[in-house]
Amino acid sequence: MAKIVMKFGGTSVADLDRIRHVAGLVKRQLESGDQVAVVVSAMAGETDKLVRWTRELSPLHDAREYDVVVAAGEQISAGLLAIALTSMNVNARSWLGWQIPLRTSAMHGAARIVSIDARELNERMAEGQAAVIAGFQGVAPDDRVSTLGRGGGDTSAVAVAAAIGADRCDIYTDVDGIYTTDPRIVARARRLRRVAYEEMLELASQGAKVLQTRSVETAMLHRVPLRVLSTFDPDGEGTLVCDEEDIMEKKPVTGIAYTREEAKITLRRIPDQPGIAAAIFGPLADAGVNVDMIVQNESEDGRRTNLTFTVARGDLTRALQAIESAAPAIGYRDLTSDTGVAKVSVIGVGMRSHSGVAQTMFRTLAEKGINIQVISTSEIKVSVLIPEEYVELAVRALHSAYELDVE
Amino acid sequence: MAKIVMKFGGTSVADLDRIRHVAGLVKRQLESGDQVAVVVSAMAGETDKLVRWTRELSPLHDAREYDVVVAAGEQISAGLLAIALTSMNVNARSWLGWQIPLRTSAMHGAARIVSIDARELNERMAEGQAAVIAGFQGVAPDDRVSTLGRGGGDTSAVAVAAAIGADRCDIYTDVDGIYTTDPRIVARARRLRRVAYEEMLELASQGAKVLQTRSVETAMLHRVPLRVLSTFDPDGEGTLVCDEEDIMEKKPVTGIAYTREEAKITLRRIPDQPGIAAAIFGPLADAGVNVDMIVQNESEDGRRTNLTFTVARGDLTRALQAIESAAPAIGYRDLTSDTGVAKVSVIGVGMRSHSGVAQTMFRTLAEKGINIQVISTSEIKVSVLIPEEYVELAVRALHSAYELDVE
Repeated sequence: MAKIVMKFGGTSVADLDRIRHVAGLVKRQLESGDQVAVVVSAMAGETDKLVRWTRELSPLHDAREYDVVVAAGEQISAGLLAIALTSMNVNARSWLGWQIPLRTSAMHGAARIVSIDARELNERMAEGQAAVIAGFQGVAPDDRVSTLGRGGGDTSAVAVAAAIGADRCDIYTDVDGIYTTDPRIVARARRLRRVAYEEMLELASQGAKVLQTRSVETAMLHRVPLRVLSTFDPDGEGTLVCDEEDIMEKKPVTGIAYTREEAKITLRRIPDQPGIAAAIFGPLADAGVNVDMIVQNESEDGRRTNLTFTVARGDLTRALQAIESAAPAIGYRDLTSDTGVAKVSVIGVGMRSHSGVAQTMFRTLAEKGINIQVISTSEIKVSVLIPEEYVELAVRALHSAYELDVE
Repeated sequence: MAKIVMKFGGTSVADLDRIRHVAGLVKRQLESGDQVAVVVSAMAGETDKLVRWTRELSPLHDAREYDVVVAAGEQISAGLLAIALTSMNVNARSWLGWQIPLRTSAMHGAARIVSIDARELNERMAEGQAAVIAGFQGVAPDDRVSTLGRGGGDTSAVAVAAAIGADRCDIYTDVDGIYTTDPRIVARARRLRRVAYEEMLELASQGAKVLQTRSVETAMLHRVPLRVLSTFDPDGEGTLVCDEEDIMEKKPVTGIAYTREEAKITLRRIPDQPGIAAAIFGPLADAGVNVDMIVQNESEDGRRTNLTFTVARGDLTRALQAIESAAPAIGYRDLTSDTGVAKVSVIGVGMRSHSGVAQTMFRTLAEKGINIQVISTSEIKVSVLIPEEYVELAVRALHSAYELDVE
């Protein structure tokens, strides 16, 4: 007997038939002898509709009221799933954030989970009752409804799993697992049986569509094994996101990720002197812009140098404004930006014990005539910025080079 | 400066434009110097959709889960109205049932209000903040969401008005007041300026569409003046539902009500002996059937008599089954039923001090050749059962006979 959290996303509960299907999966899990908590998202489209309404009424709405409106979506699906379960003679009840209570920070609209009172949940689950929990929502210190921000349903599920001491958190979604890379680009992409938490975080650019980064961080922190599998193929093996130690065979590279959501900013002929980085990145931080990759060329004359960095494409305008406002303090000659770029990353915990991974990447891209604009590395990742038009070619070439095409 | 509760029904908040319109009305009320609490229904159609979903999943659903699902409708409209208000620079916040808290009985799906904690509401309102309250919902003794049953939004509003000590509860709806009778039948029906609580209860057959009976009872109990007016003609005077003492000029008859929702049951040749009524109406009560009008003829031979009574048309099958099951104990010879009947009532607190009201009714109907099947009277009402096909004719004739056509 295990204690399992099952998480179902919006497409999994999009209509009454799918809710019945989900109820069937929950029933089966209970009948296998497990204790079960279910965390549900709003029915597909519902959250978008509610968010749109709040925006149409006021672009600058009160986040506390936004939360009241939007949290209704999960309230409805939790109640409906509980009804579907009881109609199948399954002992079940719904739990809203304030009823558990699942306490969050005061940051309405993008709150963080502070604590989850697991006592009553555990008591009921021990009695065989399925706990159907409205995901994405909690109660803030002001005793008002809070939400965790978009995609927060996964984070709810993982945090509940940690709080109740679950053996595993199963994330049911519309794909059957995590892949070595985007199957739309590489036909031979393979589903990974296991992936380490750290890798999953780095695979976020593809994984974000499947798993929210925060949920993976939470799972890693509390060592909750996550399984990603398809609601519509529930007998599939899926992908287990787990500790590195639980992965037996490690190739140097586990997967290839890419994102087109980057924009490149270049400052030419800035003074090559201490404090200049602070003069640039201070104003960006103040403007709420996250900087991703940074590269500074060695200065040729010891006095002036060039600096290139990347930001999320949606932040570009704000970033340029921040830099132009700080122009006197920085003292650059020329400011250019480029949105025609993409970031490609090779990721794998095996990199720690394998050498030559970066070299393989650079050689493979060079053979295809792809120019690397910026490079950044971490212990388990090598990322490069390349012209966007080459992204599919690069991903396919790398997928073959690291022998991910074959099992 | 007064303390006012404004109640808006589903059609008044059916879309974002209407919610903005309602926000404008609330703002105007606040700017006149009043303290304001607003009670809102779900957007028109929303409750029906949610109820339909729960029924489609399971006709015999858990009422506690039904409440979770359905209460989301008012949660959404309360949050949206609060957003619309703040976007107009009005200080406002939403209140859900559990936040007030508005405590109810344990009867999920049709709960009664037990208590309303008015302290925080009153504090905030005194500071000028509009309290936007999700109607129709509360929290049950099990700390789960409860709802008051269909139309409970009016009852919420009146109960909140009583709890906060409001000077008046304004019910904004899609009609501009209470009429002497149904304007679809009588073109010369007039809007009543004032109507007594007791009259309003008796006018329920037309008034139920405008005001829920329970809300009128609650208003009468706590002496909360109710005003019914149109959201789309907010400058209209509407109708004030108030104490009889606050109505200056009392005609003998205030209004004419009718209902086609009656069914007539006749038992022939039952024993004319003590205990027979209990033998008949006991089983009906056990079956949950409410009996409305009852008439028993004097027995001709002192041994056998006939009994006629009416029940709601929807209860007819159940009523007949109950009587047939009790046939041996009753000992009737013949059981017939008739759904082709209607009840017409003339209503007025002025009846207490005017004689001849019933006589005018009987004479008027006789002049039109309408046969009266059953009669029942109360202090402020005379009701007759007639063949359904005569209902419009009867209502029009009575409306003229009691001089309701002219102001």
